[in-house]
Amino acid sequence: MPELRKDPITGRWVIIATDRAKRPADFIRQPVPAATPGHCPFDSGNENKTPPEILAYRTSGSRDQAGWRVRVVANKFPVLGIEGDLNRQGEGMYDKMNGVGAHEIIIETPDHAASLSDMSDGQIEEVLWAFRDRVNDLKKDRRFRYILLFKNRGEAAGASLEHPHSQLIALPVVPKRVLEEVDACKQFYYLKERCIFCDIIRYESSVGVRLVTETDRFTVLAPYAPRFPFETWILPKHHASHFEDADAPTLKGFASVLRSTMRKIDKALERPAYNFVVHSAPVQEAPLPHYHWHLEIIPKLTKVAGFEWGTGFYINPTPPEESARFLREAGMG
Amino acid sequence: MPELRKDPITGRWVIIATDRAKRPADFIRQPVPAATPGHCPFDSGNENKTPPEILAYRTSGSRDQAGWRVRVVANKFPVLGIEGDLNRQGEGMYDKMNGVGAHEIIIETPDHAASLSDMSDGQIEEVLWAFRDRVNDLKKDRRFRYILLFKNRGEAAGASLEHPHSQLIALPVVPKRVLEEVDACKQFYYLKERCIFCDIIRYESSVGVRLVTETDRFTVLAPYAPRFPFETWILPKHHASHFEDADAPTLKGFASVLRSTMRKIDKALERPAYNFVVHSAPVQEAPLPHYHWHLEIIPKLTKVAGFEWGTGFYINPTPPEESARFLREAGMG
Repeated sequence: MPELRKDPITGRWVIIATDRAKRPADFIRQPVPAATPGHCPFDSGNENKTPPEILAYRTSGSRDQAGWRVRVVANKFPVLGIEGDLNRQGEGMYDKMNGVGAHEIIIETPDHAASLSDMSDGQIEEVLWAFRDRVNDLKKDRRFRYILLFKNRGEAAGASLEHPHSQLIALPVVPKRVLEEVDACKQFYYLKERCIFCDIIRYESSVGVRLVTETDRFTVLAPYAPRFPFETWILPKHHASHFEDADAPTLKGFASVLRSTMRKIDKALERPAYNFVVHSAPVQEAPLPHYHWHLEIIPKLTKVAGFEWGTGFYINPTPPEESARFLREAGMG
Repeated sequence: MPELRKDPITGRWVIIATDRAKRPADFIRQPVPAATPGHCPFDSGNENKTPPEILAYRTSGSRDQAGWRVRVVANKFPVLGIEGDLNRQGEGMYDKMNGVGAHEIIIETPDHAASLSDMSDGQIEEVLWAFRDRVNDLKKDRRFRYILLFKNRGEAAGASLEHPHSQLIALPVVPKRVLEEVDACKQFYYLKERCIFCDIIRYESSVGVRLVTETDRFTVLAPYAPRFPFETWILPKHHASHFEDADAPTLKGFASVLRSTMRKIDKALERPAYNFVVHSAPVQEAPLPHYHWHLEIIPKLTKVAGFEWGTGFYINPTPPEESARFLREAGMG
């Protein structure tokens, strides 16, 4: 008998197939091939093929030259435009505004063939510093209500270039999905005077069965009601609502645990396509006692079909207790 | 400058690319190949390869023999089990229940190579009668709170078999996505004492720009804030909250407009993979003045990536005014 499980934060129900649980080898995999350098605009030496750099951490060279370790540029094909007013207006019975926002690319390394699972911890730490620096710069622009940091790896996960990169999108509205999560956490806080994510971290640490790993600063776990097989969350143990306020030791600890988690995922699932998304509080809010920033990693192993579109209900063929165990085992030897 | 548009029902914002709008030819297409019959369990003569039939409309033969025109069977690999109690319970800080429900397959025709765009109106009408009959039968089981009718065509849309078929899933809870839609409609009704879908039908008919077609009983349109390119809705003009209450003339009109719409989509986009979902009120509710059943068709042309997962915000490269025009033109000649 499959199980219906309720996500404690959003209230979303998920169908977990407990009988014929799918193991890593059961997923039809389109492994993301180890990349081969070509005429990639993100390669070192091709700096003139991207829009001018917004930020770079450099060993040598100057602006838009080689010698950088991490480089941030505007997306050449942005989904939102940086200039202009929102111009909120009605259109008949509907509502619209101009698509004002920022869309940036964080080029994680000059090494075209690298991946988060084989970069050094220090290199990943610099990527996280670039995330932090860009959010803190952009949030000064009061038009931006939410800043999303995310990564698509592999064509199946929506990536159009294979050179390791993440993305940032600054939005003039707080998206519905984020509002739902933050509001649900607020309700829990009013009820219990505790952060629900802090509760989850403590509870999962005591139960252990969905735990992938724990360090002094971070907990990596499979959530109780995951939408997708091998969905994995990385949460800081110390309560904080905004990623961009993370201090140096936190970013250092995050880099290390992100790398080890990506290495487990790449090993267990043979370099799957994946998305990851930083969940953080709306940038114009003061620190919130009820919200807790974290990273959600979604390997792209299944297809979303009519049932999911119609219901917002997900069918997950791998219980999180199984996926956590596979990832723990992938971390050994 | 792209445009941010708000869906009037759910409040979800969508980014519409208005500058470099994508035309049908711009989508990387994996056309669903015209099917070739093989050892398909849904073919006529292979009735013993499926679970026993639950319903069939027949010209000849008896149960589980050839001679049927439309046939409904249990899914051989159901996501939910039909037997047993819900057994709602806590698990530590979480909530779960047994995955009790029904999962059925509506085999739309014995013709393996057919599709909704080349079936006769009469054949499609019988498919819709099978939808109706199955929902009305299953809703007698008071454990079921919601019954979803949907179709996945093509591997990219999550279909595992190519023989024309739709699916039904009966659920012991009303899914979050459905509750959100119904509740939002209720709020609009309290405010205006009108159904928002009735408003949309009238408004779109008067504006015309997002209209695909209108018949005496149905309106086909591209919604103002579509999540996906070429997203298309079919709405009955006469207010009704439950699909399964539709009368014979309504089903006849629905069949005709569904066929002509699928034909336009297949012509404009060269037989794309797609999902469709019947949006209907929770089955145990009495007729609702604020909710309006309809069909949502989503051609599978783009990939959902980190941005969408993180925000519930969608980026749509084709304005609905364009997609409606392409579909109108596909209907000519």
